[in-house]
Amino acid sequence: MSIGRNRTAYIAYGFDDIALVPAAETIDPDDVDVRLRIGNVELEIPILASAMDAAVDVRLAILMSQLGGLAVLNLEGLQTRYESPEEVIERIVEAPQEEVVKVLQEVYREPIKEELVYERVRAIKAAGAKVGVASTPLQAQRLLPVAVNAGADVAVIQSTVTTVRFVSTRRQPLDWKAIRETIDTPLIVGNCVTYEAAIELMRAGADGVLVGVGPGAACTTRQVIGVGVPQVTAIADVAAAREDFLERTGRYVIVIADGGMRTGGDIAKAIAAGADGVMIGSPIASADEAPGKGYHWGMAAPHPGLPRGTRVKITYRAPLETILHGPARTDDGTQNLVGALKLSMATCGARNIREMQKVQIVVAPAIQSEGKLLQRQQSKAAS
Amino acid sequence: MSIGRNRTAYIAYGFDDIALVPAAETIDPDDVDVRLRIGNVELEIPILASAMDAAVDVRLAILMSQLGGLAVLNLEGLQTRYESPEEVIERIVEAPQEEVVKVLQEVYREPIKEELVYERVRAIKAAGAKVGVASTPLQAQRLLPVAVNAGADVAVIQSTVTTVRFVSTRRQPLDWKAIRETIDTPLIVGNCVTYEAAIELMRAGADGVLVGVGPGAACTTRQVIGVGVPQVTAIADVAAAREDFLERTGRYVIVIADGGMRTGGDIAKAIAAGADGVMIGSPIASADEAPGKGYHWGMAAPHPGLPRGTRVKITYRAPLETILHGPARTDDGTQNLVGALKLSMATCGARNIREMQKVQIVVAPAIQSEGKLLQRQQSKAAS
Amino acid sequence: MSIGRNRTAYIAYGFDDIALVPAAETIDPDDVDVRLRIGNVELEIPILASAMDAAVDVRLAILMSQLGGLAVLNLEGLQTRYESPEEVIERIVEAPQEEVVKVLQEVYREPIKEELVYERVRAIKAAGAKVGVASTPLQAQRLLPVAVNAGADVAVIQSTVTTVRFVSTRRQPLDWKAIRETIDTPLIVGNCVTYEAAIELMRAGADGVLVGVGPGAACTTRQVIGVGVPQVTAIADVAAAREDFLERTGRYVIVIADGGMRTGGDIAKAIAAGADGVMIGSPIASADEAPGKGYHWGMAAPHPGLPRGTRVKITYRAPLETILHGPARTDDGTQNLVGALKLSMATCGARNIREMQKVQIVVAPAIQSEGKLLQRQQSKAAS
Amino acid sequence: MSIGRNRTAYIAYGFDDIALVPAAETIDPDDVDVRLRIGNVELEIPILASAMDAAVDVRLAILMSQLGGLAVLNLEGLQTRYESPEEVIERIVEAPQEEVVKVLQEVYREPIKEELVYERVRAIKAAGAKVGVASTPLQAQRLLPVAVNAGADVAVIQSTVTTVRFVSTRRQPLDWKAIRETIDTPLIVGNCVTYEAAIELMRAGADGVLVGVGPGAACTTRQVIGVGVPQVTAIADVAAAREDFLERTGRYVIVIADGGMRTGGDIAKAIAAGADGVMIGSPIASADEAPGKGYHWGMAAPHPGLPRGTRVKITYRAPLETILHGPARTDDGTQNLVGALKLSMATCGARNIREMQKVQIVVAPAIQSEGKLLQRQQSKAAS
Repeated sequence: MSIGRNRTAYIAYGFDDIALVPAAETIDPDDVDVRLRIGNVELEIPILASAMDAAVDVRLAILMSQLGGLAVLNLEGLQTRYESPEEVIERIVEAPQEEVVKVLQEVYREPIKEELVYERVRAIKAAGAKVGVASTPLQAQRLLPVAVNAGADVAVIQSTVTTVRFVSTRRQPLDWKAIRETIDTPLIVGNCVTYEAAIELMRAGADGVLVGVGPGAACTTRQVIGVGVPQVTAIADVAAAREDFLERTGRYVIVIADGGMRTGGDIAKAIAAGADGVMIGSPIASADEAPGKGYHWGMAAPHPGLPRGTRVKITYRAPLETILHGPARTDDGTQNLVGALKLSMATCGARNIREMQKVQIVVAPAIQSEGKLLQRQQSKAAS
Repeated sequence: MSIGRNRTAYIAYGFDDIALVPAAETIDPDDVDVRLRIGNVELEIPILASAMDAAVDVRLAILMSQLGGLAVLNLEGLQTRYESPEEVIERIVEAPQEEVVKVLQEVYREPIKEELVYERVRAIKAAGAKVGVASTPLQAQRLLPVAVNAGADVAVIQSTVTTVRFVSTRRQPLDWKAIRETIDTPLIVGNCVTYEAAIELMRAGADGVLVGVGPGAACTTRQVIGVGVPQVTAIADVAAAREDFLERTGRYVIVIADGGMRTGGDIAKAIAAGADGVMIGSPIASADEAPGKGYHWGMAAPHPGLPRGTRVKITYRAPLETILHGPARTDDGTQNLVGALKLSMATCGARNIREMQKVQIVVAPAIQSEGKLLQRQQSKAAS
Repeated sequence: MSIGRNRTAYIAYGFDDIALVPAAETIDPDDVDVRLRIGNVELEIPILASAMDAAVDVRLAILMSQLGGLAVLNLEGLQTRYESPEEVIERIVEAPQEEVVKVLQEVYREPIKEELVYERVRAIKAAGAKVGVASTPLQAQRLLPVAVNAGADVAVIQSTVTTVRFVSTRRQPLDWKAIRETIDTPLIVGNCVTYEAAIELMRAGADGVLVGVGPGAACTTRQVIGVGVPQVTAIADVAAAREDFLERTGRYVIVIADGGMRTGGDIAKAIAAGADGVMIGSPIASADEAPGKGYHWGMAAPHPGLPRGTRVKITYRAPLETILHGPARTDDGTQNLVGALKLSMATCGARNIREMQKVQIVVAPAIQSEGKLLQRQQSKAAS
Repeated sequence: MSIGRNRTAYIAYGFDDIALVPAAETIDPDDVDVRLRIGNVELEIPILASAMDAAVDVRLAILMSQLGGLAVLNLEGLQTRYESPEEVIERIVEAPQEEVVKVLQEVYREPIKEELVYERVRAIKAAGAKVGVASTPLQAQRLLPVAVNAGADVAVIQSTVTTVRFVSTRRQPLDWKAIRETIDTPLIVGNCVTYEAAIELMRAGADGVLVGVGPGAACTTRQVIGVGVPQVTAIADVAAAREDFLERTGRYVIVIADGGMRTGGDIAKAIAAGADGVMIGSPIASADEAPGKGYHWGMAAPHPGLPRGTRVKITYRAPLETILHGPARTDDGTQNLVGALKLSMATCGARNIREMQKVQIVVAPAIQSEGKLLQRQQSKAAS
């Protein structure tokens, strides 16, 4: 559509802009299959835990695997910089508000140790758990082989935006061919939000792509650099790349939605938009067992002159099992994510993830009018 | 419309997105006919009271009938689980906020007693009142015959989403043929939100269908499982099914809007969208005579692992007669619902419900800009 | 556009949805002509004061005329029911919040006295001022001749929605032919919001039509009966009727926007949408000289069972001259309405009202994102 | 599109309505070129400081030049009316809230002194800094030559809306030919928001045009006179004029976005919409070194009867270098504007400003639903 003379734009939709339409044939939720296959790795539930220091450490990764999902360990975070990351997290958590940015900037200056990379992965594998590991493109050739060597099941190369083509007069771009030859585990790469960028990552050998750049208006990436695409459209565009790539090559590259999801409804919408699975950070960080001890801090805009994400207090916490499998003790959709996904799929007539990717979507903005806000008090229970 | 490559969605509208256009020929409100016929049952007003425990008990049902409408008794609620449901409601109402979910989960574990089903309906009928009774598909074949036997005027089969086709490897779907043969009262089934699902329910023998699944963004169904369709579009689509079914079979199946209505304006819009009548919960629960004693609690997402709806305090209360027939003592549209509906119809030039289903609608979002919010204080009285 | 199967609606825009585009040729504001001609009555400024008891009494009407506009006296309000309306207003103003509706309902039960109708108009005329008088269709044949006899310059027949065709089995509709023959002053009729209704009023002999039914989402009419059309579209549609009627008959019927305007920007937009003038209530009631003594109360939904409008406290007040002609002492657009209108017209290159009706409009929603709300504090002065 | 019968409007988009799409080829931010050339004046960064008294004085102008940008000194502000403007600013800053408008109106009544115009520019040039100077069309022929004589590098003629064609029966319009012959520095003129107005200014000899009239709904211009066009569309339309003018004449007239920008994301979007550079007021006024001492006051609606802008307190302040070049100590996008712009360009695959003007834009409203607002607390760090 036109947004001015000679200037066009396409409209992008987010989770809050859509809803799913119940089908005329419904399924028994107990018959719904939500498994996710990443290369040779099969997960019972299509949920990955984000490579964030407040969300994933050794203990959480083991638990996540036991509950059917896959945690991704951040190879450039506190776990691989410090022998005892708990103490550092304690500092972050207890810093007065005005010093948080300074503390965060300081603790991440400690160098990454390859032996800690190896050790952390070994500890998780020793417990019989599956685990993913993540590095930025810059460190991928150095850190990923160490982690894979230690037994990591899935490798992830992730930065705010990762493209195959990177033009620089002073830095060497990532050698995709070399990395693909070195890493023999499934490789997930991201983030991306467009058909073109996604299909290039697929051609470069990715087994999965992460979708999500500045999905929401309040995202740091959107605020600071103005860049971002709402998730429903981004997922649909990347899913279209997956289908075209599948048709051309016979290879199925999974699409993982990353960012902007908090409730079971959000996860259901991500898959309905075309995703094969999701990667979530905040919901995992809100687990009682999460390393963040009730706090969450992001790593947006990793640019020397731009700030690291703020520390955010997490109000509601629950055991990870409750968050993933319930029973839910709240009605805001943040607990029993898997049960909610299954019920959503059952209601939409989808027996499995592939069928869920084709259910009917409706554009139905979640914007509240003033009147509605006032009347929620009386009518909330009525729906 | 496109929401991404190869992914389309239709736009759905809610009550707050539309308004009704006054006609060039107006009608005397006193000449407006708002009667609703459900099979052989004729109601003076097109309003049903939802089968919710905070809204309908024996006393409320009798009063509702006297005022021209029809209350639907929940056959799986507290009234049929407890000899003295008032005491249980007392527990719900007086539970501290943090224990409400637990109390709600506990009290609904008590088994349903068929003798109480019979007794409750008899008590209402003994007072000469009309009454509807509701069960879920799972309990329909067991409970509805008992209630019909006791004299219930209308049977309702209701769950969040009810479809004729239900696929399960472990559960028996509802035998629609058998139920239709057993129940000789009018049968209302729901909820549904699409043409396809509605027309299948009509073919299966429903005399009426309930429309409404996650109509609002704040609905539990929408939040928890991402499913829902705003009511105006849902009603219009189901009403189109009614018209097509009527043309093909000569049978007129009524469309009852259920959910998301609070004011006379909402009810007028539901009918203008195509409904024959409405079923309302919160407005009834706010009656002085309602069993909920100033509280309301829903039953959304009836899945073992998902929570029952929260308890909500109702701020404004009034006698049921005032709510339905006025005179209104507030100007927010929550009182004198029938008077408001008649005035709305008169203004839109509609003599009866069928004519109201065809009045001109305008898309006029009820979203308030900041400026408007600030100026309401001064200008509210001016419109 | 489609809002569901077989159901269409048109989109309507309000003042907050649009903005005016500056022209490539601008005009000296001092050269801009804003006169409004109502039949043989010429006003220096295109602003009428609404027939509301908090806005217009004898004193205000005289002042309004001196300032170039025209006040419309409500012939069915307190001024014509009570010898000393000030005392009654005192009661309204001093009633505790919980008794306001009761007091309002009570004081308007006092019968209208024809001698007071005559007296009030005479008092205004004795001061050499122009004045309009308003009655409902029901009382028009009784009250308007008395007021016209006393010298009223303009007659107004107004109700929430007034149509030429009114169908009733028990009430006599207004005899438009008779009224047109009795009243020899210019006659303004309303309200209406559509082409059809407007053109019928024009054919029935109206010299002007009032546009505005439930213009805003927060309007009582919209809330209570769901009826309303945002003003920009309503004005444009009625203005189209004016042009067609002019072409066919050679008679120019003025279009007066009524409702939803508070700032100079709103008034400018009303005229840009096609209006010849505006009728405003709240801005007049906020004058130091207004009878409402700092309060405002509306008369929406004049139905026996529906409430009269609430009493609203007016926070900011100023002399009427400041409100109309400045100099403005605030920057929110509520003062110097005429100066703002002239500057707006000058900026849009319009020399007079007829040219202003054709300036370029842009759809530019006034919806504030959260981010914008937060940043207003710092950036408000920057635009 | 139609907004009523026979009445059309185009849709205009603002910064909050869009986001930028990352490209499939990304650039090293250190390779990104953000220089702006204004005629023979080359700036390291494409940022001008607005001619506002709270933003620019001699000291700030020198600093702005040292940091790579260009400050524009208001030749009709306090700096050229008072020998010691600091004292006057002290009065503004310390006035109690209720007296601010009066104080502002009073202090701007002091006559402008040409010797002060000369002196201020000399002081800036003596420090080796570049500087722009701004006057209104009314004073341009008197003040600009003095300032240019004193060494000003860039001349600016600015009013809320400036057009080549101005029609008046009593005032002489600006003689564009004469001014163009007198001023031999680059000349920037504005503001404008349409193709037509912009191309006329280009033909009249402007080397740059300022884009921005009432860009936001909360702008004084929009509120008071209803006039305004959201910035993205305004910039795109004016940029189209630049391209057409370039093609026809071979002369490249720069487009400077003025107003509505607060974050690095806003600036990136302005350039993506088609601007060559930006002029910002509030962000500069929030510098520790700004003359406004923590306050900001605008000069909107410069009409004798309309108010001058309000005084606004600036909550967050930082050194100008931090605001422009970082490192950022907050994550809201208000610091390190240049670093953010470079990262945005790098992410969108733009090597320079001309390439940035062509990057892919997506319509992605920044409107927050209630749900989103509530969940921000937990999820903000996750994006």
